[in-house]
Amino acid sequence: MAPFIADPRLLQSSHPVTTLDLCDVRLQDDARYLWAVLIPRRNGVQEIEDLAPADQTQLLAETLQTGKAIRKVAQDLGYPHTKLNIANLGNVVPQLHVHVVSRHTDDPAWPGPVWGHSPALPYPDAQRVRVVMALEAALIAT
Amino acid sequence: MAPFIADPRLLQSSHPVTTLDLCDVRLQDDARYLWAVLIPRRNGVQEIEDLAPADQTQLLAETLQTGKAIRKVAQDLGYPHTKLNIANLGNVVPQLHVHVVSRHTDDPAWPGPVWGHSPALPYPDAQRVRVVMALEAALIAT
Repeated sequence: MAPFIADPRLLQSSHPVTTLDLCDVRLQDDARYLWAVLIPRRNGVQEIEDLAPADQTQLLAETLQTGKAIRKVAQDLGYPHTKLNIANLGNVVPQLHVHVVSRHTDDPAWPGPVWGHSPALPYPDAQRVRVVMALEAALIAT
Repeated sequence: MAPFIADPRLLQSSHPVTTLDLCDVRLQDDARYLWAVLIPRRNGVQEIEDLAPADQTQLLAETLQTGKAIRKVAQDLGYPHTKLNIANLGNVVPQLHVHVVSRHTDDPAWPGPVWGHSPALPYPDAQRVRVVMALEAALIAT
């Protein structure tokens, strides 16, 4: 099987967190939102339906797992949380990836979507390390 | 079991198409996009994880079924189609619902998200009837 290749644009806008059975989990580099991106390690896949049925189910499980972990990180770090946003868009980067975003009523884009709202605010190094570690730990715990 | 009650805001912005095992399928009343909304007939549910596990799997199946149907309608009616957008947001209406939208490179919001982009353009009656009928037929066929 050919080695998995992630679209460089997904890698440039996010930082690695951990590897689940199907997906790489990454932290979107925007300190204004607690925002994870799941990338199934399958080449040539753009829509969820392009995955094998077992992978579709696994993607759902890992999406829900990531949602719980994101909420736990929000709680542990004292970030407000109102609602998860879960989306597969792919208009800019067609390679299949799923966004899992903690939204709250005071975030910059609320109640609109985060995508395309305004330029990202990259994490300061220390904060990014703290959030990545918290998200990795929460994913292991859920 | 209490009868299912859909949020009136979801009903006002869309038209009924058909009823699947779990979800009501509706057509978003915006003629600029081929856009379905799935509403699981479960009260008190905001996040996908709030559903029972069997309902979660069913929601995934009906989401993928709707995606295929939306693509078939685009093909049958001669609408351009580039990518599906699949999303559970719920920032405005928290009751669980999933958007399934056919996007194309010349649509008004491309490549940004459709939500909050600009006011909807309601369907003329004849066109709405045609699209609803095509979507219902496509859902039966997929």
